Amino acid sequence: MATMLAFLATNASIRPSLLNRALRSAVEESFNRVTVDECQSTSDTVAVLANGMSEAAPIAGRTSASFKRLAAALSDLCGELAYQIAADGEGAERVIEVKVRGAASPADAHEVARAIAVSPLVRTAVHGADPNWGRIIQSLGTTRAAFDPNRIVVRICDQTVFRRGRPSESADMAKVSRKMKAKHVLIEVDLKERDGCDRVLTCDLTKGYITINADYHT
Amino acid sequence: MATMLAFLATNASIRPSLLNRALRSAVEESFNRVTVDECQSTSDTVAVLANGMSEAAPIAGRTSASFKRLAAALSDLCGELAYQIAADGEGAERVIEVKVRGAASPADAHEVARAIAVSPLVRTAVHGADPNWGRIIQSLGTTRAAFDPNRIVVRICDQTVFRRGRPSESADMAKVSRKMKAKHVLIEVDLKERDGCDRVLTCDLTKGYITINADYHT
Repeated sequence: MATMLAFLATNASIRPSLLNRALRSAVEESFNRVTVDECQSTSDTVAVLANGMSEAAPIAGRTSASFKRLAAALSDLCGELAYQIAADGEGAERVIEVKVRGAASPADAHEVARAIAVSPLVRTAVHGADPNWGRIIQSLGTTRAAFDPNRIVVRICDQTVFRRGRPSESADMAKVSRKMKAKHVLIEVDLKERDGCDRVLTCDLTKGYITINADYHT
Repeated sequence: MATMLAFLATNASIRPSLLNRALRSAVEESFNRVTVDECQSTSDTVAVLANGMSEAAPIAGRTSASFKRLAAALSDLCGELAYQIAADGEGAERVIEVKVRGAASPADAHEVARAIAVSPLVRTAVHGADPNWGRIIQSLGTTRAAFDPNRIVVRICDQTVFRRGRPSESADMAKVSRKMKAKHVLIEVDLKERDGCDRVLTCDLTKGYITINADYHT
């Protein structure tokens, strides 16, 4: 979480323990997968309130279709709000979505995705629309994740920029750079180990971030 | 270490194992206590070469006076070089020295010092010469270190700005802010637990950092 308070409400009739289960799952893949500057607040909160006023039948158990629909809706909502946090990061001009797959474990995938997302070098490169695969690989190198540099594939904005241990010869870097000027920049890393995957959102690091945080006085 | 190569040389006559011991100790408190943007390189290196050409007697053992002198000299040299890394950080205008004492353990002290030093909010506040004790306390809150918010004391540039759980009423914040415009800004935190202490160097985070890293293209 990134210095935030989120209050969600539903009129569903649902037991607190079930609602808590749906919320925790939704938060894990949304608010716990977004970072702006890695700073957090001791007040970071996500709360969901259910007043049971819906005329639909009470939600039965966690295998019921109605629970699955509620959980999916909560997940969508949290995903959208988390996206807005990245997009509204201090000084942000672009959202960066880091997707990792092929990791040896989900934990490896998470560590790699987070390492890339928190790297100020990656975030400034995206700000400068520079398809700098070197800074992405360098972030991988700081993790304990299992990978073979000769097997990994790095894609930026749907273009393969690095594979077989070297920059992709067929990549049109000028085109990738133009695509990186969009509001959403996708960085994908395939570690080619097993099937661990994860996704972390962040934003580019700009002079706006400095202005907002250096000029603000207590 | 922070994307660096350091090569040191001495004409001392000393066994490799002894020289290695002196180097490791010197590196631990210098190059391993400096951070610019937390980015590291897989090539980060510190090497020391001794050619034994000195006419002084060979350095005997690790309890000898000559070993202690060499170790102290190596420590001074590494300390000075690490300081230069912080001062020469991309876009840096000030060095920030974070000193922590009174921690329950050396590990706690290290974690707290590092948490403060890597915080972009602290680093931008220093850039803006804002004696923002809140961002320092917030960094403490992200650690697992033992502390009582009502006991800790925070000092910036030799002025107590926070104690007894609230901002110091006697602090002249305008004066602290003026002092923060110097090339060296000292942040001190006393956790008042036991005697654990540590020190980490960093630099302020400026628009220069963004310019250098966003405008550089591969």
